[in-house]
Amino acid sequence: MRSPQAFRNGDTPSPHHRNPTPHFHNTVTLRKLRRFNSLIFVFRVTAFTFSLASSVFMATNSRGSGSPRWFDFDAFRFVFAANSIVALYSLFEMGVSVWEISTGATLLPEILQVWFDFGHDQVFAYLLLSADSAGTALAKTLKGTDTCTASNSFCVQSDISVALGFAGFLFLGLSSLLSGFRVACFIINGSRFHL
Amino acid sequence: MRSPQAFRNGDTPSPHHRNPTPHFHNTVTLRKLRRFNSLIFVFRVTAFTFSLASSVFMATNSRGSGSPRWFDFDAFRFVFAANSIVALYSLFEMGVSVWEISTGATLLPEILQVWFDFGHDQVFAYLLLSADSAGTALAKTLKGTDTCTASNSFCVQSDISVALGFAGFLFLGLSSLLSGFRVACFIINGSRFHL
Repeated sequence: MRSPQAFRNGDTPSPHHRNPTPHFHNTVTLRKLRRFNSLIFVFRVTAFTFSLASSVFMATNSRGSGSPRWFDFDAFRFVFAANSIVALYSLFEMGVSVWEISTGATLLPEILQVWFDFGHDQVFAYLLLSADSAGTALAKTLKGTDTCTASNSFCVQSDISVALGFAGFLFLGLSSLLSGFRVACFIINGSRFHL
Repeated sequence: MRSPQAFRNGDTPSPHHRNPTPHFHNTVTLRKLRRFNSLIFVFRVTAFTFSLASSVFMATNSRGSGSPRWFDFDAFRFVFAANSIVALYSLFEMGVSVWEISTGATLLPEILQVWFDFGHDQVFAYLLLSADSAGTALAKTLKGTDTCTASNSFCVQSDISVALGFAGFLFLGLSSLLSGFRVACFIINGSRFHL
């Protein structure tokens, strides 16, 4: 059983790393760390699924030339863009998470990785919430107008897309709490592990 | 010079607390902690100012019976409510912050205080951003309609209110980073101080 501390800073595992270090963690601690990383991974997968679904729902929300199209509305374009960005980012972070669970090391150097994850989580969570709120306000305004009377399915599909975006935001926000905790661990202990 | 650790958990200062403790902090450390608390205080004051200004701007945005009134629009009501809540909360947190700077102890028991601050900062920051985004989307939609043609000053004042709300969000977000860091310190060290 190797210590996760041994493979910090993006090092590739090498035989001399297997020696016991002063930071040696026992099996229970290792299991806890693995659970922490798995939790992050689950949040990433869920955020990815929801935001991808949201952007697909929005992107397919056009019904021929006579009816309204989603890209004619600023707020809906914003919803689509934000969800696509978050889906791409979550996909990348899923890869990073799998890499960390399987090798025990971070993909980028550790200090870069923890700040990268936290910074992007925060910014993208706010971006996604902002887009979804704007989308909600627009969808609500449209409700009373001719747009929704003429093509009700357009409005329903927009609502679903925005709702999926909110679900994506929820899981991105949870990831951001965990990655924020890793940053704090790094600042206090000089390592992303709190144990 | 007394140690700030000595007055944790909402204790009232008593003479025996002045004995040196194992957690004794020197003057440099104390100065750093004071600077950290002062920074939080500055963020609180700024967030309070902006969100109060925003809600006042929104609440005074009615011009007689003929012209549009802010409370006829859902999103503007949301902007007003969110900004008022944040202004009240920031006022309370300013008091907490002054108390902590002057006595060195937290107002509530420490574990409650750090989680209260962080939880409310996070939730209210997202609430405020959500309200302001919804307000922006509505303000943008109104631009092209009769509402803004008939009463341009109504739209301008709404824009200003939303913009002030965004500024308030910025400073609340910064406070939330600092209070999140205190929670992490508390989880790792059993104290809100990282030094």
